[in-house]
Amino acid sequence: MKLASLNKGRDGELIVVSRDLKRAVKVPQIAATLQQAIEQWETLEPQLQHVYDALNGGQAENAFDLDMAKLHSPLPRAYHWADGSAYLNHVQLVRQARNAEMPETFWTDPLMYQGGSDRFIAPTEDIEAVSESHGIDFEGEIAVITDDVPMAVTPEQAAGHIKLIMLVNDVSLRGLIPGELAKGFGFYQAKPASSFSPICVTPDELGDTWKEGRVHLPLTVHLNGEKFGEPEAGPDMIFGFPELVAHAAKTRYLGAGTVIGSGTVSNPDAEGGPGKPVSDGGVGYSCLAEVRMVEQILHGQAKTSFMRFGDRVRIEMFDRDGQSIFGAIDQQVVEYKPH
Amino acid sequence: MKLASLNKGRDGELIVVSRDLKRAVKVPQIAATLQQAIEQWETLEPQLQHVYDALNGGQAENAFDLDMAKLHSPLPRAYHWADGSAYLNHVQLVRQARNAEMPETFWTDPLMYQGGSDRFIAPTEDIEAVSESHGIDFEGEIAVITDDVPMAVTPEQAAGHIKLIMLVNDVSLRGLIPGELAKGFGFYQAKPASSFSPICVTPDELGDTWKEGRVHLPLTVHLNGEKFGEPEAGPDMIFGFPELVAHAAKTRYLGAGTVIGSGTVSNPDAEGGPGKPVSDGGVGYSCLAEVRMVEQILHGQAKTSFMRFGDRVRIEMFDRDGQSIFGAIDQQVVEYKPH
Repeated sequence: MKLASLNKGRDGELIVVSRDLKRAVKVPQIAATLQQAIEQWETLEPQLQHVYDALNGGQAENAFDLDMAKLHSPLPRAYHWADGSAYLNHVQLVRQARNAEMPETFWTDPLMYQGGSDRFIAPTEDIEAVSESHGIDFEGEIAVITDDVPMAVTPEQAAGHIKLIMLVNDVSLRGLIPGELAKGFGFYQAKPASSFSPICVTPDELGDTWKEGRVHLPLTVHLNGEKFGEPEAGPDMIFGFPELVAHAAKTRYLGAGTVIGSGTVSNPDAEGGPGKPVSDGGVGYSCLAEVRMVEQILHGQAKTSFMRFGDRVRIEMFDRDGQSIFGAIDQQVVEYKPH
Repeated sequence: MKLASLNKGRDGELIVVSRDLKRAVKVPQIAATLQQAIEQWETLEPQLQHVYDALNGGQAENAFDLDMAKLHSPLPRAYHWADGSAYLNHVQLVRQARNAEMPETFWTDPLMYQGGSDRFIAPTEDIEAVSESHGIDFEGEIAVITDDVPMAVTPEQAAGHIKLIMLVNDVSLRGLIPGELAKGFGFYQAKPASSFSPICVTPDELGDTWKEGRVHLPLTVHLNGEKFGEPEAGPDMIFGFPELVAHAAKTRYLGAGTVIGSGTVSNPDAEGGPGKPVSDGGVGYSCLAEVRMVEQILHGQAKTSFMRFGDRVRIEMFDRDGQSIFGAIDQQVVEYKPH
């Protein structure tokens, strides 16, 4: 099943979207918002599925043509957004960029930070930033939405609480990270509002490409219209989503509508090296910080700059038939001006 | 004006509470929840104030006796909860406890972490914890609730967005902090769900004890019925709430209903020393970590243990006439058992 939210009010208006992303239908008789739906998922999921089946069969009443530009992030705001960093190739590269060693425990104990969730950006909305000097970067990732998760669940139990899957652009301000991390309290100003793919999908929608709590497909990233990366999201995700959800729930309940991210998708070489940029024949990356580090390793200096006002990033994932699964995050960076 | 939420559903039911905390009235004709009220504060605040005036005058229809046990935290869940650490005496003591120096920049650049907000604890609800070995601690603090805050506001602008004030128990798991901070991403598992005072109040309710964005009254903390601390909340708060809100908004909008905390209230001595426990004739502290560090300094070893299952903490603030302003956070630690 595929769901989305029309950009309307603070929480959007829930719609069911056809598998081919062409048609949609409002479902006020079931739930006004995705947040409401996830809070009563067990009851409402079969009703939504019924509408989805009718929509795909061309039999849903009041269906309309889907306009991606009218969609917000599936949850336009959420009560909990915690982002893991499960692709350790990314962790190694960004730490190398700031001359920090990666401890061995990182292979067994997931990294996770809590991000701002009171006002996500819509998938095609501008990314407003105060200054280019903050080192504006994108991070292409995958995220899941859970229902209510009890405290201290095992990964096996956590797997059953993963209800929806989507993509993320975890916007990062690289220039603010070293100073902020040095203070010891983690990211805050360095991680402004994120955006999510217009569509979220139930795990069954991914067929056999959803296995072991990972999405086994490449994530496609374009920067200003040029292919920037197409890393595989499956094999190099050291911790699967069930492990990340269990990590988040170790000392707390997770409320329905909790969003847990994978961290930036990143592939090392077969030999364990940091991979290569697309321009050097590699699969590329999902963020600028990595390509800059690799350019420095390969060529002695970073040639790619962080995002400038006017730059555009597009993040998307295609199934094995080339069909876009989640629609595209496609957004431009602009200078913030007080309204 | 004083507001609270009956413990009902995920978001509670908004009530207006009399100044003396004895009577209350539901206001479904104005807003169903506090979250709804803060989202339309400019329109709804005068209507709520009208009800408050009638209630204090004994003229509100359908008023009822207030039962504190039926209240949740004013926002039972929130989209954004970020906690500063503005009392640097606390920062110095807890860092000393883990042998970490305090950088000079801490006097000019506030510390802030983002906490879990999807499921706060009610003020008289048990604190469920998985293990005493996690080093269960309370932290008595003050917090404010904002309306919508634009990106990059100045502290002067931020001051006008502070709409409500309340108390917090920022539950902390000291045993998990060193390992978690060493990973570099800040607190997550070490900061489980917090609770808030049953009542939140508008700044005018504090009269001249609200000045320069600080509450100039002592915060009273009892542990198992014994006075544990009564530190002054005003003078040693190095950054006022307007500075903390502006810090939070530096690179992002803050959505209405954002909760910003002060950090643990803590007073140094007049001579700049770390203060004294109540048992040594001092004003005491608002968390166990500090008293343990000071005991070690004064007596060579910490004699106070972290919280055990069955221990109870009470956090309250009285006005100059001895009247409780916010009602009490009063809760027991219990062992978490899967339901």
